[in-house]
Amino acid sequence: MSGVWGNNIKLSIFGESHGKAIGITIDGLKPGIEINLDYIKNQMQRRAPGSSALSTPRKEGDNFEILSGFFNGKTTGTPLCAVIYNQNTISKDYEITKNLMRPGHADYAGHVKYNGFNDYRGGGHFSGRLTAPIVFAGAVCRKILENKNIIIGSHIKSIGEIKENNFDLKDLEVEKLIELSKAEFPVLDYKSKENMVESILKVKEEGDSIGGVIETAVLNLPPGIGDPFFNSIESTISGLLFSIPAVKGVEFGAGFDIGCMKGSEANDEYFIDKNKKIKARSNNNGGVTGGITNGMPLIFRAAIKPTPSISKTQNTVDIEKKKNAILKIKGRHDPCIVPRAVPVIEAVAAIAILNLI
Amino acid sequence: MSGVWGNNIKLSIFGESHGKAIGITIDGLKPGIEINLDYIKNQMQRRAPGSSALSTPRKEGDNFEILSGFFNGKTTGTPLCAVIYNQNTISKDYEITKNLMRPGHADYAGHVKYNGFNDYRGGGHFSGRLTAPIVFAGAVCRKILENKNIIIGSHIKSIGEIKENNFDLKDLEVEKLIELSKAEFPVLDYKSKENMVESILKVKEEGDSIGGVIETAVLNLPPGIGDPFFNSIESTISGLLFSIPAVKGVEFGAGFDIGCMKGSEANDEYFIDKNKKIKARSNNNGGVTGGITNGMPLIFRAAIKPTPSISKTQNTVDIEKKKNAILKIKGRHDPCIVPRAVPVIEAVAAIAILNLI
Amino acid sequence: MSGVWGNNIKLSIFGESHGKAIGITIDGLKPGIEINLDYIKNQMQRRAPGSSALSTPRKEGDNFEILSGFFNGKTTGTPLCAVIYNQNTISKDYEITKNLMRPGHADYAGHVKYNGFNDYRGGGHFSGRLTAPIVFAGAVCRKILENKNIIIGSHIKSIGEIKENNFDLKDLEVEKLIELSKAEFPVLDYKSKENMVESILKVKEEGDSIGGVIETAVLNLPPGIGDPFFNSIESTISGLLFSIPAVKGVEFGAGFDIGCMKGSEANDEYFIDKNKKIKARSNNNGGVTGGITNGMPLIFRAAIKPTPSISKTQNTVDIEKKKNAILKIKGRHDPCIVPRAVPVIEAVAAIAILNLI
Amino acid sequence: MSGVWGNNIKLSIFGESHGKAIGITIDGLKPGIEINLDYIKNQMQRRAPGSSALSTPRKEGDNFEILSGFFNGKTTGTPLCAVIYNQNTISKDYEITKNLMRPGHADYAGHVKYNGFNDYRGGGHFSGRLTAPIVFAGAVCRKILENKNIIIGSHIKSIGEIKENNFDLKDLEVEKLIELSKAEFPVLDYKSKENMVESILKVKEEGDSIGGVIETAVLNLPPGIGDPFFNSIESTISGLLFSIPAVKGVEFGAGFDIGCMKGSEANDEYFIDKNKKIKARSNNNGGVTGGITNGMPLIFRAAIKPTPSISKTQNTVDIEKKKNAILKIKGRHDPCIVPRAVPVIEAVAAIAILNLI
Repeated sequence: MSGVWGNNIKLSIFGESHGKAIGITIDGLKPGIEINLDYIKNQMQRRAPGSSALSTPRKEGDNFEILSGFFNGKTTGTPLCAVIYNQNTISKDYEITKNLMRPGHADYAGHVKYNGFNDYRGGGHFSGRLTAPIVFAGAVCRKILENKNIIIGSHIKSIGEIKENNFDLKDLEVEKLIELSKAEFPVLDYKSKENMVESILKVKEEGDSIGGVIETAVLNLPPGIGDPFFNSIESTISGLLFSIPAVKGVEFGAGFDIGCMKGSEANDEYFIDKNKKIKARSNNNGGVTGGITNGMPLIFRAAIKPTPSISKTQNTVDIEKKKNAILKIKGRHDPCIVPRAVPVIEAVAAIAILNLI
Repeated sequence: MSGVWGNNIKLSIFGESHGKAIGITIDGLKPGIEINLDYIKNQMQRRAPGSSALSTPRKEGDNFEILSGFFNGKTTGTPLCAVIYNQNTISKDYEITKNLMRPGHADYAGHVKYNGFNDYRGGGHFSGRLTAPIVFAGAVCRKILENKNIIIGSHIKSIGEIKENNFDLKDLEVEKLIELSKAEFPVLDYKSKENMVESILKVKEEGDSIGGVIETAVLNLPPGIGDPFFNSIESTISGLLFSIPAVKGVEFGAGFDIGCMKGSEANDEYFIDKNKKIKARSNNNGGVTGGITNGMPLIFRAAIKPTPSISKTQNTVDIEKKKNAILKIKGRHDPCIVPRAVPVIEAVAAIAILNLI
Repeated sequence: MSGVWGNNIKLSIFGESHGKAIGITIDGLKPGIEINLDYIKNQMQRRAPGSSALSTPRKEGDNFEILSGFFNGKTTGTPLCAVIYNQNTISKDYEITKNLMRPGHADYAGHVKYNGFNDYRGGGHFSGRLTAPIVFAGAVCRKILENKNIIIGSHIKSIGEIKENNFDLKDLEVEKLIELSKAEFPVLDYKSKENMVESILKVKEEGDSIGGVIETAVLNLPPGIGDPFFNSIESTISGLLFSIPAVKGVEFGAGFDIGCMKGSEANDEYFIDKNKKIKARSNNNGGVTGGITNGMPLIFRAAIKPTPSISKTQNTVDIEKKKNAILKIKGRHDPCIVPRAVPVIEAVAAIAILNLI
Repeated sequence: MSGVWGNNIKLSIFGESHGKAIGITIDGLKPGIEINLDYIKNQMQRRAPGSSALSTPRKEGDNFEILSGFFNGKTTGTPLCAVIYNQNTISKDYEITKNLMRPGHADYAGHVKYNGFNDYRGGGHFSGRLTAPIVFAGAVCRKILENKNIIIGSHIKSIGEIKENNFDLKDLEVEKLIELSKAEFPVLDYKSKENMVESILKVKEEGDSIGGVIETAVLNLPPGIGDPFFNSIESTISGLLFSIPAVKGVEFGAGFDIGCMKGSEANDEYFIDKNKKIKARSNNNGGVTGGITNGMPLIFRAAIKPTPSISKTQNTVDIEKKKNAILKIKGRHDPCIVPRAVPVIEAVAAIAILNLI
């Protein structure tokens, strides 16, 4: 059971990388919401491969078709289903290596789980391609949030060893965030960006890949969103983030660094600001206390592992022959998935938040 | 909506710190499972306060009573409900400070969410005390897993700046893990322990508190557990972990460090071991690929924030007067919640896993 | 998996007839709702046994205790748990007959399902006693609906062969319904009542029992409540009604009689009434079209089977000896459960409706 | 929220009658199950219109396309999505009458619920056409049950006033049921069939429609399936049955007639049969006690209302003008939906049962 999620909105995801189509059904959207198709296309384009030297040259249109729940430009209130038909799939490539369990991929875990009946071509249901429907759903949710002035944006906090600073609480303005959310390679500092790009091109040349960390902010979230325990805003966002196969770590506010802090440092002291609103002087809790938003910016970071598909020769096993084997993956791969993961992570944030308000 | 969770097993949690009782209902347990009450008491004792100088001197028996689903020493297959009646509650203390939003606590977020109708005494439904029912449920699940030889254990990886190494994959044996799971203050290295204890006593003296990081391992998990996407093992565990108010970060395997790795380093290469089993040479994925277990030890870490209740004077706001205010929290607090969080985190792991198998 | 239900509100039920307690947790209630304990007690008293010659003389106080989610007389917004401790349980009676599968009861089906580990005493989790927590939850929901002027009431449409007419649409007024909802034995027509009572006393004398049909109306439900398909108002109500062990049939509006109608008869034609509201001239759809309320009174009927516990000797099997056997049930039984089922059915209606608005 | 259902399997339905497509996603199917496309086509053909003089002459191919979860002729274990593209849709017809609320249809209830944003063409999401995906899902489930020798079949128990007897318990054999499940117009008795067909042709001539009752049996269901309370087999089946817009009543076993019975008549006495199995001498409980199967045939009946679309002139209101109006529905309608409802009801039974085993 893998593909149904949510409370206020329910997502149902389906599809395999080399099957007929991938798609998603969103249930629970209110009727009469304008769906801006260009806005959605834009978001999907941010994730789509083939747009720069930093990603795989595979061209995938990621053109979606809305099958239901959409009438006269608006949601009907009934389930909205969108599909993306698969194209440009060279399935033969996968026959040769179908028994060689690719390290870092889901091949082996999936083979055991599904008794070998899963569609192995291109990773099947485990393919990163399945994040396209997530971005579709996220775009729908994000637009609804934007209409409430809730803004989501991210920067790439690190690529390999190249790091830049966290979002600076005092510097974090809506305009800056919107600008970042439109950038193809969103970083705060120009020099960091140059170094990051350089390091990606270097691993590309080596036939290798590299990981990174993405930091995301959500501004203008009112206090009081989320629930204690099982539907906390942190639970909801992290649960969805870890649905993305490349994510290996999630932290909010000061995150793992909070383990080094004293209570007197970590506690975000409240005060009345000049607009008579309750604010905190610091944001070590990343805008969430007790699982519920407290009116400060929601801040979280996700660790993205290096693309497991690399050109370098790797050791592995042949699942049928039960023997050690050598794997040489052909094809066109992303040297760094981090930039393409940014819109996915923002989509997840939008979905998680809309599910709680 | 806060208190219902799960698929194969369903948890329903309830209670406030100073109400009549807290408790949990577990639905979906198979009939005929022996419930070892001493085993459960032991686990609950690990979490209970008052056992050492490192925790609050408040004595809470945390004596549970099973109300249903339990007959002749075994589960009946119908919902199992356990309650812990509240005692030793000095509610008057809370009247004085009820309008002063304690920094780092859920007071303000909860006040907004519940329009001020929530039970504020001792944190109410947000109290860390609500982790006691989680430990109860975890103990039930954990025993079922142990009968399948699945073993859960943890060590304190850091307290403040005092760190010790991660679990060493080659060194991680079932016996070692069981030993750790019985220790009151589980650390791998004796010297680290001494330093950690010292640092906790130091902040205690200062009227302050300190955070830390817990690292948990699950051994003997068969491959194939979990689902892609929404019910991945990482999603399930992290979702539950972030239900614990003190957790601010969760990572699997190499976690955030994977962002610094190349694919050729991060990929865990498979081989056939001498028992003809498929294993990986490294475990940067922490035993999970594509959201599903791959037969390697499941490894994750959780960042625990310093107890927000400190004796030091803090700035905050008075929610009724809408004015800045000074807060001086009286009472007996944990200088470091990390040791008491260990059994909670292990409980969460047990619940999450049993929910997926 | 038996005990968790709902979307907007979630119920979690637990308990066995002769265990320590039975109870229910209601999650999703808004904060700040006044809980009228007397109102709840009243509803529970309507279901409780021992109040007249028509029911079992067993005295069960059905005194509930609210454990959580309730503070200063109001809901807190966190899960509300109520328990009813079991008393007056003569468990020894059940030891003698524990292997004799009582006809009409869940004994055999339950024995197979739970591999014999279920608590058989007094029917255990299958006992009609478990409807007491349902009435508790229903009373909470019902009061919330009453505050919105939504009124629920019923009459006993038949006891055995003694029938009275259906609710007359033109005659169905809020005052009449409230009056019925307070009657111990609610019937529209005095003569019918007399005959019904007489027929119950007759079967009681015979050591037998008798069934009946209950008809329920909900007035002032606004149009637009419910969902097409899986969460239709009919699906939600019928799903809950069939959770009550005695219910064997559920119909809305004209119900089974609609099978004899032509479209031109069955279709409820709309018109604009003098208050400029859209109404229908008939109500064969019982206030629901396409699964959604249409502003007409919601009307449904439930068939209640005769109490399976009778004093007459019955044939059955001994589950342990795998042999035919003779069963003679001792004890005090309801000759007719219909009057006590009325508040349960009304509770179900209240819960189902509150779950959809 | 309308379109997600289930526990062990989860259905997600989508689509509008005149949109691009309708479809369903089934999550939770085990991997490696052979999908017999011809078997599914056959079931869908039973529901499809245009096959006889008794149904609408509209030709709808109801050709489905499986988009995911299906590989090399078998299920993969990942979500299986199937769509049916809409064709032959004359949407202009609906523009003229879009403001005239058709009596007996969901038009008015849906208009209020969705604030007028729903797709009104051909009933939109409320269309009976949405039962086609249900039949698809049912066919998949049914085949899995058949492989376990669990057989589902029905007969038309009545059309208007023309009735035939209920299934006779002694006469109900697997072969007979399979034969019925292949008949286009399944009735037990030839003379009844003739009369039923005649009565349908008569109302057709009148421009009217007629309702009926369908009785369904499931043979070879093992005892112990279903749960007490919320997931009882009766709750599950009835909840799904009432998702079908035409169903206005559901009863199990003796159903509403049980209200006239005494306990000594209604109780199904157990005995050991010659194969040493526990059976009951009667089946007034329709194979279910306490919400759980007891090994007897599962028997239920559903009341089907007459097709609301009739050619006769009807009174109604114009929702925009807020005025009384006259409605004359053009087009090609089913004079009796009962025969086409049979496969839908059997599909629902298959889905409900597979969800519980």
